[in-house]
Amino acid sequence: MRAPPTIPTGFRMTTITAVTTHDVRFPTSLTAAGSDAMNKDGDYSAAYVVVHTDDPALRGHGFTFTIGRGNDLCTEAARQRALPLVGRSVEEAVADLGAVYRELSSDTQLRWLGPEKGVEHLAMAAVMNAMWDLAARVAGVPLWRLLAGMTPEQLVDVADLRYLSDAITRDEAIALLAAKEPTRAGRIAELERTGYPCYTTSAGWLGYDDDTLRRLLQDAVDAGYRHVKLKVGADRDDDVRRLGIAREVIGWDAKLMIDANQVWDVPEAIEWMGALAPFRPHWIEEPTSPDDILGHAAIRRAVHPIGVATGEHGMNRVLFKQLFQAEAIDFCQLDAARLASVNEILAVYLLAAKFGVPVCPHAGGVGLCELVQHLSIFDYVAVSASLDDRVTEYVDHLHEHFVDPCIVHDGAYVLPSAPGYSAEMHDASVQRFSYPDGEYWRSA
Amino acid sequence: MRAPPTIPTGFRMTTITAVTTHDVRFPTSLTAAGSDAMNKDGDYSAAYVVVHTDDPALRGHGFTFTIGRGNDLCTEAARQRALPLVGRSVEEAVADLGAVYRELSSDTQLRWLGPEKGVEHLAMAAVMNAMWDLAARVAGVPLWRLLAGMTPEQLVDVADLRYLSDAITRDEAIALLAAKEPTRAGRIAELERTGYPCYTTSAGWLGYDDDTLRRLLQDAVDAGYRHVKLKVGADRDDDVRRLGIAREVIGWDAKLMIDANQVWDVPEAIEWMGALAPFRPHWIEEPTSPDDILGHAAIRRAVHPIGVATGEHGMNRVLFKQLFQAEAIDFCQLDAARLASVNEILAVYLLAAKFGVPVCPHAGGVGLCELVQHLSIFDYVAVSASLDDRVTEYVDHLHEHFVDPCIVHDGAYVLPSAPGYSAEMHDASVQRFSYPDGEYWRSA
Repeated sequence: MRAPPTIPTGFRMTTITAVTTHDVRFPTSLTAAGSDAMNKDGDYSAAYVVVHTDDPALRGHGFTFTIGRGNDLCTEAARQRALPLVGRSVEEAVADLGAVYRELSSDTQLRWLGPEKGVEHLAMAAVMNAMWDLAARVAGVPLWRLLAGMTPEQLVDVADLRYLSDAITRDEAIALLAAKEPTRAGRIAELERTGYPCYTTSAGWLGYDDDTLRRLLQDAVDAGYRHVKLKVGADRDDDVRRLGIAREVIGWDAKLMIDANQVWDVPEAIEWMGALAPFRPHWIEEPTSPDDILGHAAIRRAVHPIGVATGEHGMNRVLFKQLFQAEAIDFCQLDAARLASVNEILAVYLLAAKFGVPVCPHAGGVGLCELVQHLSIFDYVAVSASLDDRVTEYVDHLHEHFVDPCIVHDGAYVLPSAPGYSAEMHDASVQRFSYPDGEYWRSA
Repeated sequence: MRAPPTIPTGFRMTTITAVTTHDVRFPTSLTAAGSDAMNKDGDYSAAYVVVHTDDPALRGHGFTFTIGRGNDLCTEAARQRALPLVGRSVEEAVADLGAVYRELSSDTQLRWLGPEKGVEHLAMAAVMNAMWDLAARVAGVPLWRLLAGMTPEQLVDVADLRYLSDAITRDEAIALLAAKEPTRAGRIAELERTGYPCYTTSAGWLGYDDDTLRRLLQDAVDAGYRHVKLKVGADRDDDVRRLGIAREVIGWDAKLMIDANQVWDVPEAIEWMGALAPFRPHWIEEPTSPDDILGHAAIRRAVHPIGVATGEHGMNRVLFKQLFQAEAIDFCQLDAARLASVNEILAVYLLAAKFGVPVCPHAGGVGLCELVQHLSIFDYVAVSASLDDRVTEYVDHLHEHFVDPCIVHDGAYVLPSAPGYSAEMHDASVQRFSYPDGEYWRSA
């Protein structure tokens, strides 16, 4: 019989005691915030996961983002996916989150429901986001700094490179990270001075009237933004008029991005963009189905020099691999709550760096800004080492529900400093907006 | 005030009164039936939907297929998706299933969870399969005959062509169907004599030992099959030995298909197939991630003249469009319970016909054989009008749970004649295998 392991004096082992899941929905459909040509009435929601430990001061928090109905399914899927975590050592789990990810993601029966897409993949994102939050809290640092302190080998070990070896090998990935490793500290110091550049979508929701649009664009300019984004795609004449207003307010030096939220077929996208080209958009975002790699490539060839951007509905790393291989996009807009957390996101950043495509993460929603700031900072520090053509989305709503909300100053994210992934919501918010039994929804 | 509508004498209006959903799971993991290199322990399951009407003799039945855990999520997603159906007229609904499909599929909040993939899309398949079963029962004919009686315009009106216009236009689709319309009756008469050709996977599950494999292959030959399929991809030496046994038993004239169930990266697939090429496989099925269009194209170029097949995990019509555009596959194996029923499947058949790719549907599972026979027959009668390189999967298990099970004779599906989509399960089976409260699972 083996002797029990010796625990070093002063070292306390911690155990995951429970994982709770919460269907949290905010009634954003009551205003036009978030409205676009495809998503007309979203109630911004989170399938929220809390990993509890036997240390009352230590929890991990994560979520995926949805726009209302079906958030219950993601919540239940996350509960099921997290079951194997209960009872295991926190220290062992966070020491090898690659192993935890591989175990949870390879459930032999759940795989059929994707693989790696839809409700099950969103749930996987929620669970692993909570585990990465937990890992950063155990380390006592913000997530971006935890990642920026890992060696190239450690990073590649936690990245999910399955199905990617025709595009990037493990050795290539390590070499790519190793080349930037010696200069990480300098870039951290730089970002601590400047923050990470962002743009705002708060002005351009489709449901806003012209006066509101004009006022919000002016507010954005006054707040220091050099990039703004407008929703398009519902009516061509409206788009022409709104883009005209935008250029009047922001001038021709600031960047104007537009977003069609998947409403067009490929030929329609090309034709419609002909009418909007005079306003010199920086990019057209989601011109068609997010699954249509070859369609994006065709649109990109046709609308040059306007850039093509997509990714908020990019379901997994295999899709992004092909978007890069097909030279289909100019900007990669990965989503921190749709890809399966840092493990899969790391793989997409590595691919993007190899193919030379800037990553400009999707944000907004519930808490996405809180997450993506960590990813963008890490990308600059350790992967791409470039800010060229990089700008991260920022939308100014629902931050009040977060314990460590992101801070934007002069059009840039201020580096987060609290331990974790900034994913924790106020308990009072979770309770009040829990669906359907929270106080808000009971009285709505 | 308007007068109430006049109901013609003798015409009885029927109303959808309820939609019930059932999580039905069969304990197939207890045997090795269904085992392959990726899916080792599936409990073949159905998220089963019954559309009830105020006519006790008229119900619609549909399902999606899963392999166990998570079937509850699909069942609940189907329940939610079907809610708008309750209370509406059966006659109006079945007269325009294109409109029903568009309404249900465009829920503005649920769309975020895909779009058109994963749990939500599987649920959409289950619900629309039940509506198509209902429509065929109202018409008093098997589904294939209902479809074969529709005009080209009617068929294209119910097909989901969104995001496909860069590959096939509405006019092209109509012309393609119109060209075969005058000769439909002759092909129906031919299939009534011959049946529709099928192949068997029952012999080749990975969990079977060599003696079982040899015996089942001989049974298949004796039963008249000219095509058999083996699972590969777990161990290269095992694969070489098993393929050798297969060729000993079936000879070199019969077709030998192999199926890797997504276990390989692209370079690995190409290398591994080098070792299996001497056994002259007819096709390699699912060599890599089902999402990897460009990967399949690369494998296809490398393993020629061995064919490449995929589709059972093909998530939606946009994926299939690209598989055709990229010349990535030789055989299209669409799944009747993963694509969103006839509306989306029709679109894939039209694309396949335009690009000249034979469709050999995936079957097996629970009830997939019952569904795909209708689709294959319809394809020959009205779309491709060809049997060249076409053969539909058949697996001999779980048919006893169906009211109108498929019949295979001399390696061919006998044309179904009962009204409906052959999707109805025995009430006793549904009750006994309902999870977790059916008699089987309570005592398991």
